[in-house]
Amino acid sequence: MYQDLKQACYEANMQLPKLGLVLFTFGNASVVDRQNRVFAIKPSGVPYETLRPEDIVIVDFANKIVEGTKRPSSDTKTHAVLYAHWEHIGGIVHTHSTYATAWAQAQLDIPILGTTHADHLTVDVPCAPPMSDQLIQGDYEHQTGWQILNEFQRRGLTPEEVEMVLIGNHAPFTWGKTVDKAVYNSAVLEEIARMAYLSCTLRPGVPRLKDALIRKHYERKHGAGSYYGQ
Amino acid sequence: MYQDLKQACYEANMQLPKLGLVLFTFGNASVVDRQNRVFAIKPSGVPYETLRPEDIVIVDFANKIVEGTKRPSSDTKTHAVLYAHWEHIGGIVHTHSTYATAWAQAQLDIPILGTTHADHLTVDVPCAPPMSDQLIQGDYEHQTGWQILNEFQRRGLTPEEVEMVLIGNHAPFTWGKTVDKAVYNSAVLEEIARMAYLSCTLRPGVPRLKDALIRKHYERKHGAGSYYGQ
Amino acid sequence: MYQDLKQACYEANMQLPKLGLVLFTFGNASVVDRQNRVFAIKPSGVPYETLRPEDIVIVDFANKIVEGTKRPSSDTKTHAVLYAHWEHIGGIVHTHSTYATAWAQAQLDIPILGTTHADHLTVDVPCAPPMSDQLIQGDYEHQTGWQILNEFQRRGLTPEEVEMVLIGNHAPFTWGKTVDKAVYNSAVLEEIARMAYLSCTLRPGVPRLKDALIRKHYERKHGAGSYYGQ
Amino acid sequence: MYQDLKQACYEANMQLPKLGLVLFTFGNASVVDRQNRVFAIKPSGVPYETLRPEDIVIVDFANKIVEGTKRPSSDTKTHAVLYAHWEHIGGIVHTHSTYATAWAQAQLDIPILGTTHADHLTVDVPCAPPMSDQLIQGDYEHQTGWQILNEFQRRGLTPEEVEMVLIGNHAPFTWGKTVDKAVYNSAVLEEIARMAYLSCTLRPGVPRLKDALIRKHYERKHGAGSYYGQ
Repeated sequence: MYQDLKQACYEANMQLPKLGLVLFTFGNASVVDRQNRVFAIKPSGVPYETLRPEDIVIVDFANKIVEGTKRPSSDTKTHAVLYAHWEHIGGIVHTHSTYATAWAQAQLDIPILGTTHADHLTVDVPCAPPMSDQLIQGDYEHQTGWQILNEFQRRGLTPEEVEMVLIGNHAPFTWGKTVDKAVYNSAVLEEIARMAYLSCTLRPGVPRLKDALIRKHYERKHGAGSYYGQ
Repeated sequence: MYQDLKQACYEANMQLPKLGLVLFTFGNASVVDRQNRVFAIKPSGVPYETLRPEDIVIVDFANKIVEGTKRPSSDTKTHAVLYAHWEHIGGIVHTHSTYATAWAQAQLDIPILGTTHADHLTVDVPCAPPMSDQLIQGDYEHQTGWQILNEFQRRGLTPEEVEMVLIGNHAPFTWGKTVDKAVYNSAVLEEIARMAYLSCTLRPGVPRLKDALIRKHYERKHGAGSYYGQ
Repeated sequence: MYQDLKQACYEANMQLPKLGLVLFTFGNASVVDRQNRVFAIKPSGVPYETLRPEDIVIVDFANKIVEGTKRPSSDTKTHAVLYAHWEHIGGIVHTHSTYATAWAQAQLDIPILGTTHADHLTVDVPCAPPMSDQLIQGDYEHQTGWQILNEFQRRGLTPEEVEMVLIGNHAPFTWGKTVDKAVYNSAVLEEIARMAYLSCTLRPGVPRLKDALIRKHYERKHGAGSYYGQ
Repeated sequence: MYQDLKQACYEANMQLPKLGLVLFTFGNASVVDRQNRVFAIKPSGVPYETLRPEDIVIVDFANKIVEGTKRPSSDTKTHAVLYAHWEHIGGIVHTHSTYATAWAQAQLDIPILGTTHADHLTVDVPCAPPMSDQLIQGDYEHQTGWQILNEFQRRGLTPEEVEMVLIGNHAPFTWGKTVDKAVYNSAVLEEIARMAYLSCTLRPGVPRLKDALIRKHYERKHGAGSYYGQ
């Protein structure tokens, strides 16, 4: 029944190793079907080399498997929370990409230092603090979804304007209107993280980008007056 | 009419991902036709994987589209200013290559530390400071061209001797007598930026190359007494 | 007689250059046959490009060659000591992979900073101190095996829970129930080492991962309550 | 007449881009014919993509072209001085490989920090200080050869025991009994330089490898009691 959804999910997942964003099975992509309130997600621990479209698992927002014979990604509950609460996102990607994860391990936001960053978002890439021990010991992956939601609320961010987050001590999640955008955002985040690492180690305490440049570059690509692309 | 110009521009653009200098659509190359006072440039936001020679846009020095159905690069006005004022350059390349951009984000010139650098230019790679908020909010890409021209004038540099610049907080531009030389300069700049990053983090405060070595290496490759190449 | 064992050993060795873990001949993988108390190991100094399954050498736990015409890896005695004393390991891999070796050269444990690390082990990756001059001048490779055993005993670690070690000033060894797991661990170690390098240079003194997260991530993948994979 | 020599030189040169040691034309390899006191060397500024065996130039120790229609490498005189004074070397390689050049730009010896280094030489990789302005302005490439010879004499090093050097502010040269060994040494040097960079930035002031380990590892691979390889 969900063959197209599985195919789209499969193709998005296969982009991750091609873009150098995952080692072995350290990542997953999902695609939502809003009408049926289900999403397609990578099966847990299956290597990308042997992954097939029919291995993709269909899950509903309450984490119930709707179709598929494999166990879904261990991060499925995190995806479900985000889909349930953020109505306008169409796909989610989780990786342990090297530089983004290094920032998450350092428990630091990625500061906005250049136009490459401002072309995609107007604020530092937020790093959500690790959750309390009690929550970790509870329904961990479900709580990881809430960790993201709460951090966005605390900072007054919307998932439309900021399509990426670092989970402190863990790794990044990205999303977008489509899963292709979510995959794109994962690659952009890794490059932003790498450039910021280099700038910060080259010149500790380097100042943030000034507001006028942030707004100019973001608005070139987003909103009513945008003039980037076809 | 401009089929050869488009083809040359297409081929130069296709070199950028091959040389590892661009992610997704973050870069563009242009080629000028001095006789007709027009230049060929990459269309905005078109991925390199699907770019075709016929997608290339022909623009005049006043930024008017002369031929082509696509919207030209959002950086077109910067190219136009440089072509209009620097009579001897034949091609321009803009990338967000990782190490060069990291230096630009740090708002630092790339110091001349070795002969790899001196083989190509005799001074630090200049980093132009970010422009005023007023100019950013005005005709931004046009002003970016002027930002480069003014910085070169302020420092007493000529575009023949120094074929590369960093825009503070943004990214590099390079140029050359031909677009192939401009592409070559982009790759050289990235490697110079990478080596200088490593030397500076290994030994903070490392001294610049001494004058005699700068002159010797530059003159091996340039000017009347050069003896490098065939 | 040991054709299957040689083939398995050959295939494991050939994974190492593919995963970017070895330059030239700087590494080796071995596979044990517990029933016959022998193991198959790469011949010494043979390039991976020309290695053939029939070049693999079969050695017993006393380092006697049982089958094969080549001289076995110069690290053979280290492998023999580990197989003789750790009954449950099925394969061993030694590399000089760049980031893991950089930590070994710095004589530092790799601190546990993130969930990528905790998915695989619950403690810092141990770095065994260099052995005494007397032992170095004696039966060096045999003593290297003891260096690992002693370090594990001193720290109260078991080879089932910690499947990797750094030899101070030298390089890493990894192992596992199977040689495929040992190869996998070598690649994981290199990535953990790289991420930790980046986090530590970005934020010197970065705190370790807290216990609740360590336990949660390790137990997702290991033990009775694990729910990762198929 | 020198077809075999040209072919060997061609093949050695073609290894350099494959091993990731050269960008564009930044490097060259040469092979000596001791009987005829000539050597084959890469032509100056010819890209590796278009290099052909017949482009290789044959030069004698006084830098006279013996065979070939191209201009030889601008570094030819450096090669000639080394061949004329070091009787036992069979090939020389010069690159601007990234990490080795970063150390040269920092004007620092590469400290011996691990067994990967000690497997190949027992001392720090020497970095020769830049020569005087007078010598630079004179017969520069000839003097570069003398810069290496003098530095080796000053330190009491022999070209048989130490097959690599950094020219301060410039880049590395390596050599060996054969040109293949010289190419191998260039790749080894780059990896040693990279590991040492990482160890030194991770732990500034990291101590050198102790003597017993240096001797043990070097002697495993070299001299009468060596037992590495077939």
